[in-house]
Formats: sequence, C-alpha cells, structure tokens
Amino acid sequence: MLTDLTDDLAARLAADLPDAARREVAERYLDEPRGNRHGRAGAVFAPGTTEEVATILRFAHENRIAVVPYGGGTGLVGGQLTDEGTVPLVLSLERMSKIRAVHPGENVLVAEAGAILADVQEAAAEADRLFPLSLASEGSARLGGLMATNAGGVNVLRYGNARDLTLGIEAVLPDGTIVNALRRLRKDNTGYDLRHLMVGAEGTLGIITAVSLRLFQRPAKQGVAMLVVDSPAAAQELLQRAQHATGGGVSAFELISGQGLRFQVEAGLDVRQPFAEIPEWCVLVDLGLPEAMDPETVLEDLFAAALEDELVSDGVIAQSAAQADALWQVRESIPEGNKRVGAIASHDISLPLGAIPDFLETAATRLQEAQGPIRINAFGHLGDGNLHFNQFPPEGETKADHAHKRDAISRIVHDLVHEMEGSFSAEHGVGRLKVDELERYGDPGKLIAMRTLKDALDPHGIMNPGAVLRAR
Amino acid sequence: MLTDLTDDLAARLAADLPDAARREVAERYLDEPRGNRHGRAGAVFAPGTTEEVATILRFAHENRIAVVPYGGGTGLVGGQLTDEGTVPLVLSLERMSKIRAVHPGENVLVAEAGAILADVQEAAAEADRLFPLSLASEGSARLGGLMATNAGGVNVLRYGNARDLTLGIEAVLPDGTIVNALRRLRKDNTGYDLRHLMVGAEGTLGIITAVSLRLFQRPAKQGVAMLVVDSPAAAQELLQRAQHATGGGVSAFELISGQGLRFQVEAGLDVRQPFAEIPEWCVLVDLGLPEAMDPETVLEDLFAAALEDELVSDGVIAQSAAQADALWQVRESIPEGNKRVGAIASHDISLPLGAIPDFLETAATRLQEAQGPIRINAFGHLGDGNLHFNQFPPEGETKADHAHKRDAISRIVHDLVHEMEGSFSAEHGVGRLKVDELERYGDPGKLIAMRTLKDALDPHGIMNPGAVLRAR
Repeated sequence: MLTDLTDDLAARLAADLPDAARREVAERYLDEPRGNRHGRAGAVFAPGTTEEVATILRFAHENRIAVVPYGGGTGLVGGQLTDEGTVPLVLSLERMSKIRAVHPGENVLVAEAGAILADVQEAAAEADRLFPLSLASEGSARLGGLMATNAGGVNVLRYGNARDLTLGIEAVLPDGTIVNALRRLRKDNTGYDLRHLMVGAEGTLGIITAVSLRLFQRPAKQGVAMLVVDSPAAAQELLQRAQHATGGGVSAFELISGQGLRFQVEAGLDVRQPFAEIPEWCVLVDLGLPEAMDPETVLEDLFAAALEDELVSDGVIAQSAAQADALWQVRESIPEGNKRVGAIASHDISLPLGAIPDFLETAATRLQEAQGPIRINAFGHLGDGNLHFNQFPPEGETKADHAHKRDAISRIVHDLVHEMEGSFSAEHGVGRLKVDELERYGDPGKLIAMRTLKDALDPHGIMNPGAVLRAR
Repeated sequence: MLTDLTDDLAARLAADLPDAARREVAERYLDEPRGNRHGRAGAVFAPGTTEEVATILRFAHENRIAVVPYGGGTGLVGGQLTDEGTVPLVLSLERMSKIRAVHPGENVLVAEAGAILADVQEAAAEADRLFPLSLASEGSARLGGLMATNAGGVNVLRYGNARDLTLGIEAVLPDGTIVNALRRLRKDNTGYDLRHLMVGAEGTLGIITAVSLRLFQRPAKQGVAMLVVDSPAAAQELLQRAQHATGGGVSAFELISGQGLRFQVEAGLDVRQPFAEIPEWCVLVDLGLPEAMDPETVLEDLFAAALEDELVSDGVIAQSAAQADALWQVRESIPEGNKRVGAIASHDISLPLGAIPDFLETAATRLQEAQGPIRINAFGHLGDGNLHFNQFPPEGETKADHAHKRDAISRIVHDLVHEMEGSFSAEHGVGRLKVDELERYGDPGKLIAMRTLKDALDPHGIMNPGAVLRAR
C-alpha cells in the first residue's frame, strides 16, 4: 500500500518547503545506539515550523509514503529507524528546537519538540525552577522523542514520567491536520485527551511539534546517601520509611546490585567504590527537602533506625555536593560497566512492587537452570518497580560465546514478568524491537483497540510503519 | 441510525442476563442534581460482572440501541441522562461496587467502577493509606463516573486529578470487546495508553468497569489556616511561598471571596465566620507534613513574613482538629450559600495561573457593563487555576428576575476565558450542557480527531449519544 520515497517525489515535496528543510541523508539518521539495526531514508526533511510538518505529512498521506520521525536518535528499541518495507522519509525535528516561553510564576515551560532535554533543564534552572525529567541521554535526546516514548529516568518516583510532565501538546496528525492543545492549564476537561494518546504512541499516530511542560520549585536542600541493604525487600521497606520521614521528599531511589559494581571494577572504570567490600545490594537515596529540614539528620536517623532493624548494614551519607556527585557517578557508571563487559540480553521491565523480591529470585533460578552459569545485573528505579535486568557471560567468556542464548533468555525473563503481571517495557517503549513481545503478551482487547485507533487516524499506515504495531 | 429500546428488546437482553441485572426504571436514574433536565430510559440494567457489561454492549451494538452509563448520578453537566434522541438503555454500575484488593506496600487499590468514593477512601484509610480524591459528592459518586469525567476536587494541587490517580483500567468497548489494562504498575510503555483515552471520555467510548488506583502515605501532621489576602495575586504569591517552605506539602489551597461568605450570612447558614469583618479575599491553606516539621510553626512563619510584605492582613491558624474542621466547613458551605441565594449562571473555568488576577477584574467589568448590577462569587482551587465563577442577582432580587441573562453572561465569561487561553470546563466535563461550548471554543483539529476516534471505536454511536460530541 505504501510506495518508496523516490528522488522525484522528494524533489516535489522539497519544492513546497524552504531550502533549509532538506537535509543530507547523514549516517546519524540511520544509526541507533545499540547498533542492532541500520535504517534507510529516501530523503531527510527537517521542517522549521508546525505548518511545514503539516505540509510534509499531507504530502506523505496523499502519496502513501512512510514517515519515520527522528528526534535525538537515542531510543533503545529501534523506533527511530526502519530497515524494512518501503524507503521512507525521515522527518527530523532538529530545526524546531526553540524554547518558546518560560512562566516561572506558573511553573510552566513551552518548547518546540526539537528542543534538547539538557537545554530545557537549563532554561528551567535559569528561571530558578526544576524540569525534573532526567536520563542518561539528556544531552542529545529531544523533547518530541521523549514525549513520544513517554521517557522515564531517575526522577519518576517523585515527579512522574514524560507523560505526567506534559500539560499540553501541539501535534500534526497523519493527514496533516494540526491539533493545537498546547495549553498551560492544570485542569481541562473539554473532550478526549489527545495529549495522552500522542504521548507514548512512538510517532505512529502523528508528530508532536511542541509541548507545554510542568516545572517545579527546586528543593531548597539535597541529601544523598548510598546504603547497603540486606535485600531488595529491605530496600523497599527503607523507601517507605524515607517517604514517610520526608513527606514524599524522595527524589530518586535506585537499586544497585553488587554485580553492577563488580563489573565496574572488572572493566577498569575510573569509579571510586564507596564500600571497601562490594555489597550484594545497595541503594542510592536522593532527597530534596525544604529549608526547614536537614537532609543529613534525616538520613542519619533513617540509617540508624534501619541499622537497628537490620534492614541496612553499612552506608555513606554525602557531606558535600562533590560527595553527592561521586555517589551518583557510581550509579551512572553502571551502563558503561555493562557495555564493556558485554550483555547477552537486556530487559527494561516493571513489576508490581510487591512482586520484585520474588521475581529476582525466581528469574535467577530459572535462568541458571535453563542456560547454565550466567551473571545477572539487576538495577534501576526500585520505587517505580522498574528494573533493568541484564544477563552477562561468566567471567572470562564473551558475549559472542553466548549470543545464541539471547532469545531464550529473553523469553524466560518476559514470561516470568508476564506471569507476575508486569510489563516487558517499563520506560523504553516498544519500537521495532519489541513488536513480537507486544503481540505475545499484550491484552487482546487492547491490541484490537490499538489497531482500530491506528487505522482511524492513519488509514494509509504512513506513520512510523512497523513500530509498536506490525506494518501492513 | 439508532433505535428505541422497546420492551421486547429489553426482554430479549434480559434473557441473557441474571435476574438481578434488570432494575426498575426509578426516578433517580432520570434526575440530575441541578434539576435542569429529565432523562428517559427504556430499561435500566445493572450488570454484576464485566462479562455482563460486555453482553449488554454487544447487544446494544448489534441492535443500535443508545446506552447511557450511570454511576452515582452526581454529574453537573447532564452527562448521566438524555432527554433527546431514541429511548436509551441506562447501564448502572451500582452492582459492581467491590473493592477487589488493597496493596498498602505498593500504595495501590483495585476496585470495581461502581464503588462509592467514600468507601474507597475508607478502605485506603483502614490500610493506613490515603486515597486523595475528595469532592462534595464523595458520599454517592462512583469510581466509574469519577474516572469517566476525570473528576477534580480540593486535593488536585498535590495529588492530581482522577486521571493522575489511575494506574490501570478495565473497560468494555462499544462493541463488547473487553480491554484488560488493570495493571498496578508505575511504568508501562507497551502501546497506546487506552486508560487516558477512556478517562475523561464521559462514557462515549465505552464503559470503565474497574480501576487500579494510586494510594499515598498519609501525612504525619496536618496544618490548616485561613488567611486574609490582599488580592488573588497576593494569594498566588503566598501559595508559592507555602510550597517552597514545605517542599510541596500544600494539600489544598482554596480561594474564597467575601461574596461567598456574605452569602452564607445572607442565607442564614449555621457557619461560624472566622473574621469579625468579612474580608474581600481569603484563602484556606491545608498542609500535610512529615513528623519532623511542625505545621503551626510553618504557618506562623509564613503568616509573619507575608504580613510584613503586605500580602496578608489577618489570619486564623487552627490549633486543633476541631478548629481545622471548622475552617474547612466555611469553605465547604460556599456551594450551599450559593444555592440558597440562587445563581443566575455558574462556570467551572480554568486559566493559566498568571492570567487569574486580570481575568477576575476584566470579567467583573465586562459583566457589569453588559448586564448591570450583578453579584459575583469566585472561589475554588486557586493552585490549579480552577475557579468556580458564579453570578447572582443583586440583594433583594431573585434568580428568576435575571434568568434571561444567563446565556449572555455565560458567553461573556467563556469568551474571556477563551481569549486568555483558559478552559470552559476545568473539572466538571462537557456532558450535554457544554456541547455548544466545545464546538465554539474547541480547537478545530482536536474536534476532527475526537470525531475520528469516536466513529472508529463506536461506529453506530451507541455510547452516551449527545454527550461531549453531538449525536448523529
């Protein structure tokens, strides 16, 4: 039903757009961070305005051309490139990167979809406000992609994910219709919430062109600690206590496994290990508190009581911003350690909070029974029930030695997640990598409804074909 | 295209359902709180299970019968009854009122859509948790309706509206397809978010049958004060300061106008006025704080600094739970005072926070210029930018004397709200009462998309016809 974007078609479209909108088909549009796929593009267009986005989609709709939206290119599930089907048009938001307005009194920021996350964070900080979305790729990820994939990160526990931070959107539907719902209201009950339909649709229902975002007051004081916990269950109890003691002031609460720290050592990373002996489990706690509370006292009291109750056995409480940064660096170096050691399989799962301890035990048992000795690094956003759960070869062996086990490992992990009513994609999305999983584990009624919505809004299937739903 | 629900058709459907599912067509299914409309029903069915809901919708879909969903019947915009079109089937959720599970360790509660809000609050409290959705009708409003209308209330500022409190839903689509997305996960990026499409759709895209909800730890300490503010702008500055001082610990922040208090006196309500002289503007502040903070000290410090800066001029800080309740009673008696005096017109609007002071002045000027001397009571959820903005006759005259001005008043108010990029329905929804407004003020692209979604999911238009979108 779709047709290749030929040079002729691209030239016809280019004639309707300013010269600046046509880009070279550079390699970066065709690569993705994990190097699993390589995309194609008949042409790359980078519109400068919402109207130009509408012109492109109208043309693609009329001529049945596949459109692959491209933000910062940092997605981990292949949503930003296609190596199947017809030759697509790549639509990059890079020229729509303006921050349109900051309203500190309203705690609102309005920006175009091509704005880079770090720039948005900075614009908020300049107005003495916090935009709390924060993740590893923030230096290159762009708002449109972050919203389209409903990005998560370390501060979801307190401030919510990309969806929760979005007050309004402007978007272009597949047929070129512009939807202006770029409101900066906290409450608006006037009809279906298109914002939430576009957020998380991964570019399959249209293009988000601008967003209005929630900002927050910056906490007056920060407290950071790394505590050795007896078990993941102990970590969960500790989190409840920390929330109670601070009235919900826990900004981040990250679970770290000893395996992750041992990988840092094994890979020779320049990371100062906080404990003389690497513990089996520890947590990074980050508190954001008002002026009237002292973070160190709160953390000391929390630690003392947890020590008494044998939830924790050791800990480091940062005494300076530099120490806080050093503890965060331990957490943030985990992916690099993983990368150097080389994962056989990676999973971005979420579980009901109560199921996590059982999951960790059962998954390890099942994996080792079926696949022999492999190493597991489980880490991540414990308060959200979101774990990155990755498998590695035994020491001295390589990823390549075990690559053939990848699918079987993922099946074991995702089957168990499904049994426990969890999700096979907590924050990374479906993209092209997990379409099979969605078909396997998705609720049949939900899949029917999704297909109905897709066919209604995008009858020719031009928008990011093959992502989320199978192309047809 | 639709057909009346005749006795024959009702009997055929009844044969497929347990006896208990057929209800008398009682008056309560046909009334609404403001008495503006009177509904009709060929039959009332109250299914006991999700499967029975599916049976009913499948039948209605096949036979082209209008279905009006009915929760607690407390909606204020006529979404729960129809007096136009074919004779409908009323589908009441009253028999699906079970609280299925409470997971205090996860801060999650799962309940059927017919559960009454007060019962849900109580079940949470029994598990030492808070379900923060709170509004005047909580003793009879049911979850399904609250979710379908994305209800708000006094705690949205801190905890979000019904949408934000919903982790997952189970729903039945118009053709009888059951969607099971009743997850209790904090993060789940596996496809389009049907939850958010059903929430706020006011029963026009299907029936919500169960929800999983976020719970919260109950704040250790509460502090309540009523402070006389110099102006709405001063109130906004005070809120920012209160948020900063408490790290986001403001549970509610309600603006109260002197007019609302004078109405209480005029109507002879048994409400103890907190100030000897009724102030022009005051605010009710409710803080929920951790153990380590003292609410009275926080409120005293806030008050002293605001007095110094001439933001406030007087105030009462509750010294006991009874005093806190008494202050809340002042706020909660405003609607009763309004009712007794008799409003010519009522509006549930939201505005960008920065626009509120200007709106209040400009609206008063325009209304008085066009309609002569009328009295205005503006009150509500200032932190959310959500005001209830109601007009009344001069003292000694009646609502009936001025009833003819109603439409003109609403036009002036809503035109100004629209100019200022606000919403004509902040928390009450569109229902049947505000369909004209949605057509007048709604973004054309959004309306196109809404119609596309409605036609796709409900091709025969059986679900709550005439609500939100015009029936056709």
